Amino acid sequence: MNNQERIDDLQIKGYKIIQNPQLFCFGMDAVLLSAFARVGEAETALDLGCGNGIIPLLLAAKTKGQHFTGLEIQEESVNLAKRSIALNGLEDKIQVIKGDIKEASTIFGASSFSVITSNPPYMIGAHGLTSDKEALNIARHEVLCTLSDVIREGSRLLKEKGRFYMVHRPFRLPEILAEMQKQRIEPKRMRLVYPYVHKEPNMVLIEGVKGGRPRMQVEPPLIVYEENGNYTKELLKLYGEVE
Amino acid sequence: MNNQERIDDLQIKGYKIIQNPQLFCFGMDAVLLSAFARVGEAETALDLGCGNGIIPLLLAAKTKGQHFTGLEIQEESVNLAKRSIALNGLEDKIQVIKGDIKEASTIFGASSFSVITSNPPYMIGAHGLTSDKEALNIARHEVLCTLSDVIREGSRLLKEKGRFYMVHRPFRLPEILAEMQKQRIEPKRMRLVYPYVHKEPNMVLIEGVKGGRPRMQVEPPLIVYEENGNYTKELLKLYGEVE
Repeated sequence: MNNQERIDDLQIKGYKIIQNPQLFCFGMDAVLLSAFARVGEAETALDLGCGNGIIPLLLAAKTKGQHFTGLEIQEESVNLAKRSIALNGLEDKIQVIKGDIKEASTIFGASSFSVITSNPPYMIGAHGLTSDKEALNIARHEVLCTLSDVIREGSRLLKEKGRFYMVHRPFRLPEILAEMQKQRIEPKRMRLVYPYVHKEPNMVLIEGVKGGRPRMQVEPPLIVYEENGNYTKELLKLYGEVE
Repeated sequence: MNNQERIDDLQIKGYKIIQNPQLFCFGMDAVLLSAFARVGEAETALDLGCGNGIIPLLLAAKTKGQHFTGLEIQEESVNLAKRSIALNGLEDKIQVIKGDIKEASTIFGASSFSVITSNPPYMIGAHGLTSDKEALNIARHEVLCTLSDVIREGSRLLKEKGRFYMVHRPFRLPEILAEMQKQRIEPKRMRLVYPYVHKEPNMVLIEGVKGGRPRMQVEPPLIVYEENGNYTKELLKLYGEVE
């Protein structure tokens, strides 16, 4: 363990995660996505671009899913994820593979998962590129893969009627929904995350079903903070801090 | 004036509207759409499926737009709308034409308006058809025109960079956004209307720009009722009852 690294407690089942701020530390988006996604008992899930493994770890803790896989292109993140899995003794439950999202359906084979999750890079190309750290740029910007790559590979990887879950920025919603429909992942459920009740949303959570019928349920707004700056009860509940 | 009719005060500029419950009386959707839409000083606006003329009347009251047109297929509604226009002395400002949305761009000519608005039928085909009144069915269900007709004709009727405004049900959002993009009306602004802060939204307001660049602004949630069942301040403001 190098001296930039730290171990964080995930506040669920005693699971821990090794993080390195030089790479990419998980944020609220990963936590909300793993609370939004549903993985059933006999199901297998793949996370496209898993970084340090946060989503497979949280899904393994929160759901009854049978097995969880993570795909990640950055060697250092794969290494972190593998060590976190070992630290939690989850080698039988979670596997992380080094590889490119653009080739995911070739790596794993078509129709091989019940559930696909992804917290992909939000920013288009190099737009607004500010970090001098390449690892962070790859995680945040569509340098190595685009929204279209994620959805196309997600669709190929899913079994018929399999579910696709993604968190993204609301400003790209028209593109997200159009691309999902184009790739036969019908958008079925959506929730907007508003930091405050009077502010614009900064995240959108989406569920799609491969080959599903058109009709999307839009859920109640997810508000993060009360007016006084405290977390709302619902957010604390999603973080597992309130029953 | 037949004995089913009534005259309602629009609470703005002293404008009044003649309504007949046998046809279709305006609801909150029309009020919110006319508050969401922007019509500039030298601009002309067309409302597709204007019913009794509520949207042209409210836009004439609320904006500085130069001229407003309504297109409506039902004779009785056209008749009501014309009488309301006369009642308010707005014959120079508003014109209502009897005609079919599916042929709107032939009736008015391509690229002839700065702004298009529409509060179209929400329900797909005859799905959930309950009323035995044909006039109400036509207003609520896609009996005579579909979502796709409204967006296609809207796009043809708009000048380049012209704006398209629509209110619809959130469950059809994927189809709405995909159809807009297909017809070169780029979705640029969206607002979800939630009856209560913890409930699912029941309306979506959308602005698109013909030939616009992709990037959609999602606005803060519009909440209709406080927990105690009173209207929220923002809703009262949109209704013009609070400054």
